[in-house]
Amino acid sequence: MLRLYNYFRSSASFRVRIALNLKGLPYEYASVHLTRSGGQQFAPEFRALNADALVPVLDDAGRVLTQSLAIIEYLEETHPQPPLLPADPVERAYVRSFALTIACEIHPLDNLRVLRYLVRQLHATEEQKNAWYRHWVEQGLAALETRVLAEGRSGRYVLADAVTMADVLLVPQIFNARRYDCRLDHVPTLMRIFEHCMELQAFIDAQPSRQPDAEDN
Amino acid sequence: MLRLYNYFRSSASFRVRIALNLKGLPYEYASVHLTRSGGQQFAPEFRALNADALVPVLDDAGRVLTQSLAIIEYLEETHPQPPLLPADPVERAYVRSFALTIACEIHPLDNLRVLRYLVRQLHATEEQKNAWYRHWVEQGLAALETRVLAEGRSGRYVLADAVTMADVLLVPQIFNARRYDCRLDHVPTLMRIFEHCMELQAFIDAQPSRQPDAEDN
Repeated sequence: MLRLYNYFRSSASFRVRIALNLKGLPYEYASVHLTRSGGQQFAPEFRALNADALVPVLDDAGRVLTQSLAIIEYLEETHPQPPLLPADPVERAYVRSFALTIACEIHPLDNLRVLRYLVRQLHATEEQKNAWYRHWVEQGLAALETRVLAEGRSGRYVLADAVTMADVLLVPQIFNARRYDCRLDHVPTLMRIFEHCMELQAFIDAQPSRQPDAEDN
Repeated sequence: MLRLYNYFRSSASFRVRIALNLKGLPYEYASVHLTRSGGQQFAPEFRALNADALVPVLDDAGRVLTQSLAIIEYLEETHPQPPLLPADPVERAYVRSFALTIACEIHPLDNLRVLRYLVRQLHATEEQKNAWYRHWVEQGLAALETRVLAEGRSGRYVLADAVTMADVLLVPQIFNARRYDCRLDHVPTLMRIFEHCMELQAFIDAQPSRQPDAEDN
């Protein structure tokens, strides 16, 4: 039995939900509310699962796994079909690099705890906080758009016409970008890929608004 | 022929140098100076290799690879010996999660371009910038120390007595922490692992001070 500790709005959680759906793996949804009562991720019971106090956490029959990309690689290794990585090592590196650019260059800067530090410790205004958010998202996506165009490998999805880990990372990042009113007109290729992904049930079902703990806005 | 575009002080570059050394793979060292003349990573020739303007970039006989973790996974797949990941999927997920915690939760916040944004856009003082740096490093390493102790899987290295990708990521992060005078007395297990790694020639040879483009401090 798979149990996913996650939060509807967490984009790292969203990634794992997509991967589980694409693999056709049912799972129990365990909600960890990141803002209610000071943040349930800081509760001792949750910290015992993940000292880092971050979602998602996947419990696979008692084996506790953390970090969304490590979880997705684990699912790929234990449930290879359908594959989320291509077979060729150079193409695998391309897909992983695309995914890591989102996971390492864009998302970490816009994490809840980082935004809180900006406000509480550096006394950033609401406007400065939002500008920070948009800066990293818009610059990061622009670099990905440039790369996708330069490589010429995209089709319906980031790599030709098969969904990969790259798409799994892209879609939640676009959701975040929209929530914070980031510019997206400068990344038409990424948006075309996003729209193609959102035609698939695995992505539709994984989106924040469809989760049991979803709230308005 | 392998050519590594990198910079002596870049910790993402340092990771790939360690992995190449552990695999026994010789490579040509192509220096990309990140601060001289406005940053050589922003030069059009380099941007043609990596739109993201980040080091490291590995050129493997014309195949251009980016993102340090994607490069290390590629090396693991194309040169499996000696392995940098264990065989068991749960242990692989553990090692990857450890590595990703550094790559996604600690390092991105202390990147050169992030520190510049703090100073230029948010007018952070030198003291505030250094406090930011130390906050994310000290908190992130503390969470890893807690996890390593709770899991009880460490030996000479992060996972028992064989060097893995987790150690490859840990060592450059400790170098960064020392450079910015971060506390390290709260992570004795990580420091013991660090010292064990630094007895190995692959790590010794990859350190910043031994690189052809090294400068004082």
